[in-house]
Amino acid sequence: MPKAVVLLSGGLDSTVTLAHSLNDGNETVALTFEYGQRHSRELDSAKAAAEYYNLKHIIVNMDMSSFRSSLIGDSNNIEKDRKNIGNDIPDTYVPARNIIMMSIAAGICESIDADMIYIGANTVDYSGYPDCRKEFFTAFEEMLSKGTKAGAEGHPIRIVTPILNLSKAEIIRSGKTLGAPLHLTWSCYSGGKKACGHCDSCLIRSKGFEDAGYEDEVEYR
Amino acid sequence: MPKAVVLLSGGLDSTVTLAHSLNDGNETVALTFEYGQRHSRELDSAKAAAEYYNLKHIIVNMDMSSFRSSLIGDSNNIEKDRKNIGNDIPDTYVPARNIIMMSIAAGICESIDADMIYIGANTVDYSGYPDCRKEFFTAFEEMLSKGTKAGAEGHPIRIVTPILNLSKAEIIRSGKTLGAPLHLTWSCYSGGKKACGHCDSCLIRSKGFEDAGYEDEVEYR
Repeated sequence: MPKAVVLLSGGLDSTVTLAHSLNDGNETVALTFEYGQRHSRELDSAKAAAEYYNLKHIIVNMDMSSFRSSLIGDSNNIEKDRKNIGNDIPDTYVPARNIIMMSIAAGICESIDADMIYIGANTVDYSGYPDCRKEFFTAFEEMLSKGTKAGAEGHPIRIVTPILNLSKAEIIRSGKTLGAPLHLTWSCYSGGKKACGHCDSCLIRSKGFEDAGYEDEVEYR
Repeated sequence: MPKAVVLLSGGLDSTVTLAHSLNDGNETVALTFEYGQRHSRELDSAKAAAEYYNLKHIIVNMDMSSFRSSLIGDSNNIEKDRKNIGNDIPDTYVPARNIIMMSIAAGICESIDADMIYIGANTVDYSGYPDCRKEFFTAFEEMLSKGTKAGAEGHPIRIVTPILNLSKAEIIRSGKTLGAPLHLTWSCYSGGKKACGHCDSCLIRSKGFEDAGYEDEVEYR
């Protein structure tokens, strides 16, 4: 049985990606990073999704304090920043984030003899992110084939991106088809019990469910 | 003035690599990882080397608890393991270690607009490590050129390996020539105030100094 490590943030995309790995017949391990996210709500969702499928769940703490990004740090300052820049999209780019997370996933793959890393990267929503492009994932696979024991032994770790070119509506439909626990996922930039309904992430999510023709079971304020 | 992030463990190789970056005329930032090493002696050496040159020094904590490696964890167990296997070389391979450290270094490069990562990898001492080979570093550079903002903007981060093909004696000679603070470096697998003098790392170091024709200023028990 092939073995996969799935990057699971607790959001919609990574949870659907998790469902793909299971559907592909892999023994699946979920991997979540804690890197000083603004709220732990997303982490709770990741835990809930892993529990839903009764999977081994590895949570890795990352010290990203040396990194500049509005995703990291004091949430009060973020709110202030957001007001200051007049509801513009916050700068959510974490330098080399996918590279770092996939590298750690590769280390875990080597530790547990897993064959694949599944990542819910998407070129549609994140067209400006260089680390969400197909050519990047190909180069990453090549790098792993040269730089890991698995690669040297002739069974390099593969990167699998099942939702890379899907629209949000297509992601939701494929999640529904695979029975993914979309009701447990979290997209809102804010924490709390209910989603705010008006941040960029909530808007993209809502439109996705509408386009897909499904009701979003997550509660909104 | 070009800017470089140098991976600095506190050992001989990385300290000489640091001296190379400075000698190459780079504005240099030292980067050290704390990942549950057996002792903090090496970290102290890294701090001392950065202070010696009066450099900015970034220390990143890494949670490697999910990784299997004898370098990580309870030193009592390691000693026991070592006895059990009859003084064999301990398994010091940390899965994907260089990949992970270089990925985080790349993120820091992006954060501080640095152009290069210097790493003291060496094919002579670590011929069995796939992540110490030239072809790996080339593939890593290619991956970074595809997956980072810097790469997308046409100024990809470069990986510089000044001691890649040098013998230990040559590394020591080049360190001496560049005025690197070799007396502050630490190679011994054990902690303590003085090096043990008989672990593999001490033996390689001692022979290196002997071959190079220099006296090792580090104290041995």
